[in-house]
Amino acid sequence: MNSIEEKFLKLGAEYAPGQEVRQNTDEIKLRGEKISGTPVDFSHGDVDAFEPIPGTLDDFIEGVHIGGKQAYTEYRGSIMIRENLAEKLSKFTGTTINADQNVIITPGTQGALFLAMGSTIARGDKVAIVVPDYFANRKLVEFFEGEVVPIQMDYFKTDTCAGLDLTQLEGAFKAGVKLFLFSNPNNPTGVIYSPDEIREIADLAQQYGATVIADELYSRQIFEGRPYTHLCAQKNINPENVITIMGPSKTESLSGYRLGVAFGSAKIIDRMEKLQAIVSLRAGGYSQAVLKSWFAEPEGWMTRRIAQHQAIRDDLLAKLSAAGGFRARATEAGSYLFPKILEFGVPINEFVKILRLQADVIVTPGTEFGPQFADSFRINFSQDHIAAVSAIDRVIKVVEQYRK
Amino acid sequence: MNSIEEKFLKLGAEYAPGQEVRQNTDEIKLRGEKISGTPVDFSHGDVDAFEPIPGTLDDFIEGVHIGGKQAYTEYRGSIMIRENLAEKLSKFTGTTINADQNVIITPGTQGALFLAMGSTIARGDKVAIVVPDYFANRKLVEFFEGEVVPIQMDYFKTDTCAGLDLTQLEGAFKAGVKLFLFSNPNNPTGVIYSPDEIREIADLAQQYGATVIADELYSRQIFEGRPYTHLCAQKNINPENVITIMGPSKTESLSGYRLGVAFGSAKIIDRMEKLQAIVSLRAGGYSQAVLKSWFAEPEGWMTRRIAQHQAIRDDLLAKLSAAGGFRARATEAGSYLFPKILEFGVPINEFVKILRLQADVIVTPGTEFGPQFADSFRINFSQDHIAAVSAIDRVIKVVEQYRK
Repeated sequence: MNSIEEKFLKLGAEYAPGQEVRQNTDEIKLRGEKISGTPVDFSHGDVDAFEPIPGTLDDFIEGVHIGGKQAYTEYRGSIMIRENLAEKLSKFTGTTINADQNVIITPGTQGALFLAMGSTIARGDKVAIVVPDYFANRKLVEFFEGEVVPIQMDYFKTDTCAGLDLTQLEGAFKAGVKLFLFSNPNNPTGVIYSPDEIREIADLAQQYGATVIADELYSRQIFEGRPYTHLCAQKNINPENVITIMGPSKTESLSGYRLGVAFGSAKIIDRMEKLQAIVSLRAGGYSQAVLKSWFAEPEGWMTRRIAQHQAIRDDLLAKLSAAGGFRARATEAGSYLFPKILEFGVPINEFVKILRLQADVIVTPGTEFGPQFADSFRINFSQDHIAAVSAIDRVIKVVEQYRK
Repeated sequence: MNSIEEKFLKLGAEYAPGQEVRQNTDEIKLRGEKISGTPVDFSHGDVDAFEPIPGTLDDFIEGVHIGGKQAYTEYRGSIMIRENLAEKLSKFTGTTINADQNVIITPGTQGALFLAMGSTIARGDKVAIVVPDYFANRKLVEFFEGEVVPIQMDYFKTDTCAGLDLTQLEGAFKAGVKLFLFSNPNNPTGVIYSPDEIREIADLAQQYGATVIADELYSRQIFEGRPYTHLCAQKNINPENVITIMGPSKTESLSGYRLGVAFGSAKIIDRMEKLQAIVSLRAGGYSQAVLKSWFAEPEGWMTRRIAQHQAIRDDLLAKLSAAGGFRARATEAGSYLFPKILEFGVPINEFVKILRLQADVIVTPGTEFGPQFADSFRINFSQDHIAAVSAIDRVIKVVEQYRK
């Protein structure tokens, strides 16, 4: 086998959200009848249930009518839109973002993550990533031929912080890690890092001269008004060593426009633009125009959206709790739940296939987020409320049917 | 300097098309007055002069109204759109393309190129690229830490073929090159490879077991009905070793939607999808819907577009020829001209800055396409006809003003 084949063996996407139709299910044997109900794809949010910010299509059409100037922006994105973004994101994070130096618009938040990682990882570099965390993080480190240094997060330990093992993080920095990547709120658990955790991450990164990439994709959808702490706003870390990633694909349901944003370190943003020049040139020019509506939603729109999600979360957690045999920490922000199935004999990759075939419910196996999560699964509960509740009933039934 | 800094030093985008606003022009000293006229940006086509295929915005809006299904496609793109594409591209190229196995939709043709290169180059691999050819080709090989093996194309030798040095190509394969990348029609010269050249490339690749990536971005805009030969349709090469790249960004003016397509080898398309999963997930979902209008343009639309471009080409060539002091081979396909300035003392990077500051004309320096093209520049003549002709007059004036 040649080395490119080896490299791609590590990049399997069969279990990745949205790729379920490519799964091989020949060897799955079902027990009992099909459990019927409205199909629910918990692998990602349902933008038909939670629609895009009103007016975004109009922004896009306006972009098309602007013509060539909007189609061919600088690789880092239209300066006018970056100016608008810099103002909004400075206000949101409590920092000062320069539109010319510190912002890049990317094709989705995935694009921002890829460019940020590609701009900071050289072959052989040690990169600390949280376990569990977004499944692409590990794959990105491997693709760029870095070495993954896992940092454990014990999200069941307490509900006053995320549970990151800060001793392990310091050990990693001591052992030569120069890049730390984490999502806050955490994907897949939906927990928020406490102000103390964020301050300590900043302290350690500063002490050891490390760069930190903070993926804050879901940071606008906070439940119960919890405090949220932006790493980029910490005074105890050199801002040139921080990149923050956000985007309107989740809470705002704009994934179909493929828009993300990275802001922070001018040096890293410069590199990201150079990389973007060979990866995809720029985020779709007309799509960029849609960012005007971001952080400018109609009065009450975001509050209502958060309340609706919180209500779904509550119903799903109540169902799991009543059923017994599951353990789940309540989502603090975003739309993810990461329940653990207690005393269950079925391998998780088999379970997700069974669930899809028998109950028309799609979930993402825990092993996508770290090898030890072989008894957990992730759901994105940004779904039609009634359909989501009915689907969790079917999940519970399937688990009961297959439990040893 | 650490290794990531070194890596990015090779990725300079300062002179790349569209990035001119980021150029440093502090040390440029102009001779004489400003030469006024309608600003023309020859670095890329003007989609205001040549508008997108009619109806494409309607396709997009329809895509938005389809909703979640269109927003979240498989990473390789919507199956319905791939089926439609497979049929059209099979007919265009004279091959048989399977929609499920052999096609991926990407964020622009640049996206296709990045994914194809990233899926075939392992560190240290020797990769043959043509000189001159699209400037990102070299950067891509360097980013993936391959070794560039240049193959010369003597485009001034004859007008019966592109002028690729096939002896050098065979030597490269003998020396261990396993990947050959070329654009046809060639970017920046606009010449087409002859049927003999394509057959010979296929023969050599087959003999040495090499993979070939053919970038056919401009293959629909052929002048004077010249014969065009698709590498993928050659019977003397294993189709699993060929990837063809196309897209509607140029002739069809759809660059603002960021759409490209790669088709061919199922094995490489599989890898490209895995890579897409970590690069940007998918081409913008709603944008994908726009591909319906591609190869389905209104009657006569393409013929008229080609004729209009041919007329601009003829006028520009006549102006350069009348002025003297330039050498240019007539474009055979696409919208590029790559004139060489004879006996000129000004470094080309300085010349492009002078031209922009003094005459409001943007061109791309030849050195982007190979270090030896220090006396050439590329123009994309897909512009307003009158403005393009006036701009070439200004180019000629500036050259005369600075000639030693």
